[in-house]
Amino acid sequence: MDIVNLTPPSGTRDFLPADVKLREGVFAAIKQVFESFGFVPLETPAFERIEILNGKYGKEEERLIYKILKRGEQAVTGKADLALRYDFTVPLARVIARYQNKLPKIFKRYQIGPVWRADRPGKGRFREFYQADVDIIGTESRMADAEILLVLSESLTRLGLQKFVIRFNSRKVLVGLMEAWNVPTQLQANILTVLDKFDKIGDEGIKEELLKQGAPQKIIERIATFLEILPADSSGLIKVIKKILQTSPLGRLGLKEVEEVTSLVTPILKGGRIIFFPLLARGLAYYTGPIFEIYTERLTTSIASGGRYDNLIGIFVGKSIPACGGSLGIERILLSLKEQKAEKIPTFTQVLVTVWDKDFQEDALCFAAKIRNSGLSAETYLGKDKISQQLRYASNKGIPFVVLFGPDEKSKKKVTIKNLQTGLQAMLSQDEFVGFLQKNLNSGR
Amino acid sequence: MDIVNLTPPSGTRDFLPADVKLREGVFAAIKQVFESFGFVPLETPAFERIEILNGKYGKEEERLIYKILKRGEQAVTGKADLALRYDFTVPLARVIARYQNKLPKIFKRYQIGPVWRADRPGKGRFREFYQADVDIIGTESRMADAEILLVLSESLTRLGLQKFVIRFNSRKVLVGLMEAWNVPTQLQANILTVLDKFDKIGDEGIKEELLKQGAPQKIIERIATFLEILPADSSGLIKVIKKILQTSPLGRLGLKEVEEVTSLVTPILKGGRIIFFPLLARGLAYYTGPIFEIYTERLTTSIASGGRYDNLIGIFVGKSIPACGGSLGIERILLSLKEQKAEKIPTFTQVLVTVWDKDFQEDALCFAAKIRNSGLSAETYLGKDKISQQLRYASNKGIPFVVLFGPDEKSKKKVTIKNLQTGLQAMLSQDEFVGFLQKNLNSGR
Repeated sequence: MDIVNLTPPSGTRDFLPADVKLREGVFAAIKQVFESFGFVPLETPAFERIEILNGKYGKEEERLIYKILKRGEQAVTGKADLALRYDFTVPLARVIARYQNKLPKIFKRYQIGPVWRADRPGKGRFREFYQADVDIIGTESRMADAEILLVLSESLTRLGLQKFVIRFNSRKVLVGLMEAWNVPTQLQANILTVLDKFDKIGDEGIKEELLKQGAPQKIIERIATFLEILPADSSGLIKVIKKILQTSPLGRLGLKEVEEVTSLVTPILKGGRIIFFPLLARGLAYYTGPIFEIYTERLTTSIASGGRYDNLIGIFVGKSIPACGGSLGIERILLSLKEQKAEKIPTFTQVLVTVWDKDFQEDALCFAAKIRNSGLSAETYLGKDKISQQLRYASNKGIPFVVLFGPDEKSKKKVTIKNLQTGLQAMLSQDEFVGFLQKNLNSGR
Repeated sequence: MDIVNLTPPSGTRDFLPADVKLREGVFAAIKQVFESFGFVPLETPAFERIEILNGKYGKEEERLIYKILKRGEQAVTGKADLALRYDFTVPLARVIARYQNKLPKIFKRYQIGPVWRADRPGKGRFREFYQADVDIIGTESRMADAEILLVLSESLTRLGLQKFVIRFNSRKVLVGLMEAWNVPTQLQANILTVLDKFDKIGDEGIKEELLKQGAPQKIIERIATFLEILPADSSGLIKVIKKILQTSPLGRLGLKEVEEVTSLVTPILKGGRIIFFPLLARGLAYYTGPIFEIYTERLTTSIASGGRYDNLIGIFVGKSIPACGGSLGIERILLSLKEQKAEKIPTFTQVLVTVWDKDFQEDALCFAAKIRNSGLSAETYLGKDKISQQLRYASNKGIPFVVLFGPDEKSKKKVTIKNLQTGLQAMLSQDEFVGFLQKNLNSGR
C-alpha cells in the first residue's frame, strides 16, 4: 500500500459527530433569529460559471477563487469553466437578475453555508468555511441598514456573545475625506487601505505606509495632522469630521447616514454599542454607503461585518439596485464557543436492545422497532459479544436503558429492562415495557 | 452590458425560499430517523486530494469527477490537485483511517449533503445533488445488513412513501452463478452488467447484449435457459438458484446471506416488501455481499440502494474492514413530494410593524424588537409607502397581525393592533400589546 496523506486538503476539516452537532446548533440558532426578522432562505450551487465571478472582487481576491477544470474531451486543455463560490453576494446578484419578476420588490434573504477561498490558512481562517449572510435588496431606507445591524447583534447575543462593539462608518465619509484632502483619484483606494489599519499600526505606521504608497508630502502632512487631533469619543469625532467635510457634499451625506442609522439602532442596542469609526474602510471594493465591523472584547479580528452596496446587485440587470447586508464570521464564533465544549462523540440512543445470541437477533430487531415506534430512539447491539460487554458498551456510550431478552424472558414471555444509571432492573410484560421506557425517558426527543 | 447566462451551471439549481424549506423539512425528518437508530453525523470537505478519489470508482465514473485546478503560480500548468467529492463513501474510508483510534469499533454514521458528478443531467438527475447515507463500519453481523434496510425503510415511510419494494440479492450469488456457468473471469463484470438490465430489456435483449459483449455461445444458451425457467416468487427462485449453486461454495454462502437478512427484516417490514432478485448487480464495483435497491410503484428508478462492501473502507488502512450501508435518493424523493406542493414564498413573519412616516422609524424598530423579545417574529416595513400599501403588503404575504403607530397613538401612548384575518382592530397600551399578540399567536415558534 502506498503511504497516503489522510488529512483533508489544506484549510479544510473533517467534522466528527460532536463538532457537527455543535455547528448545527449554532446554525439553527442563527437561522431562528434571521427568520424572526422575516428573512427567508435562498440556496445557490456550490459553483458558478466562471464569468459570473470574474471581475467582481478585485485582482487579489480573484486569485483565491477555486477554478474547476473542463470535463470530458475538454479536460486536456487545462482550462476552467466553473468556479467554487467565493461568497454569497455575487451569486445573489445573479439570482436577483434571474428571478426579477418572481421575487418581492423588497427582498430579505439569508443564506448559511460553505464558501471557498484559497487563502493562507491560519487560526480561525479556513479555505472551506461557513458564512451566514443576511441581505435586504430593493430599498435605500436607513431602516434597512439599521435592521442589518439589529439582526446580527441579536444573533450574537443569542449565541452568548454579549460583549461586542459595532464600528460604524460610511464609504461616503471616506470619499469625502479624500476630496477634502485633495487626494488624486488614482491614489484613493490605496490610501484608504492604509488608513483602515490605523488602530493596528498607529500614526507612525500610517505615515510610513503612505510614503511607500507614493502619497505626496502635502497629503501625508494633512493626514498626520488629522490623526493627531482625532478625539476618542463619537460626538467629538463627528464634530471634527463635519468641519473637514464642509466642502464635500458627498462626505456630508455620508455623515448624515452615520448619524441617522446610529440614532435608529441606539434605543435598542445597549449604550456604547455602536461607535463612529471614520477610518474604517472594509476590504471589498463594492461598498457605497454605511459600512461596519463588529468586534468582541477578546478578539482582534471582527466576528461580523457588512454594509451597503448599491451598485453590485444590479450588475446582471444593467441598472443599480439598492442593497445592504452583513455576514457573521461563523468560524471565529464557533472557535470561541468550542473552547468551552468537550469532544466526546454524542449519543442519540436512549435504549440499547442487547442480543442474547444468534437465535435472538430477530427478537432484538423487533423490540428496537417497537421502541422507536413509540418515539424513543433505540439501537440493537451489532457485535458478537457477551451480554456483560454489551452492557459496558451501553454505559460507555451513556445510553440510559438496556433491554435484556434471553431464554428465561422468552419462556415467561417477558422482557427485562435495566436502568444503567441506578442499576435497578425489572422484568416486564412485552405489552408494558415500551410504556415503562416512555414514562422514564420523558416520552421522547 | 454583456449578455450573461443567468441560469446556474448545467445540472445545478437555485433554490428559492419555498424549495429550501421543503428540502430542509425532508432532511430534518430523515436525520431524526437516522438518529433514532443511533447513527451519528460526520462531515467531510466538499473536495478531497485527487489521489484519494482516483482508482476507487472505475474508469467510467472517474470521468465524471469535477477536478479543481492548482492555484497560484501552478494554475498555468492546467493540472488539478483536488476534486469535488463524488460520494460520501470514499471520504468516509479516509476518515476511518485517520481516526482509527478515536472512533468506536462499531461505528454507525450518517452524512447528508451535496455530492457532484458531471453526469448527463435529466429528470431527477443533477450534477449537484444531495445524498443521505447511513453506514455501519466494523461488523460482519447480518444484523447490520438488516438494520440498513430497516432505517432506510423507516425513513421512506416517515416521508409518506409507504408503497415500496426492496429488491435484494448478494454479490456472492452473482459470482456463484458465474462460476456455475463457467463464465471466464475477464467476462464476468460485463455479463453482470447485462444481466442487471433483465427487467428492462427482457430475454431477447439480454441475448443480443451478451452477443455484443462477446460471450461464448454455450454461455449465452445456459443463461437463456435459466431466464426461461425463472419463477416469479421468491421461494421458487431460491429453490432454482440453490440447485444451480450446488457446485459453488461462495454462491451458497451468498444465498445464505439473502435468506438470513430476509428473515431478520420480514417480521418488521410488512409482507412482500423484500423480494429476492438474483440478477440485481448494482453499478459500483466495490460490493462484496448483500446488495439492494428500493423501488416505489410509480418510479422506474430506485429511490434507495446500497449493500455490503468489506474491502473499501480499509483501503487506506491496509486491511479489510467490514462495512455495509445505503443511500436515499433524496432528489428523486423530493421531486415526487414537490409535485404536491405550491411554490409561494413562505413567510416566517407573524407581525408587521408599519411605519407612519420617517419620524416614526425609531419607534417601529423598537416595537419590532419588543415583539421579537417575546419569542414571536416581527418585521418592520422597509419601503416608503402609505399605510394602506403597507397593509396590502402584509396581507399579500399572509402576515396575520399588524402594528399601527401614528400621531394619534403616540399622543395617547397606545398602539393599534389589527388582525388582518378578521379585520378587527384594537388600541392597546404599550405595556399590554405584546401579551395580546402572544395570546393570539399561540406564543411563538
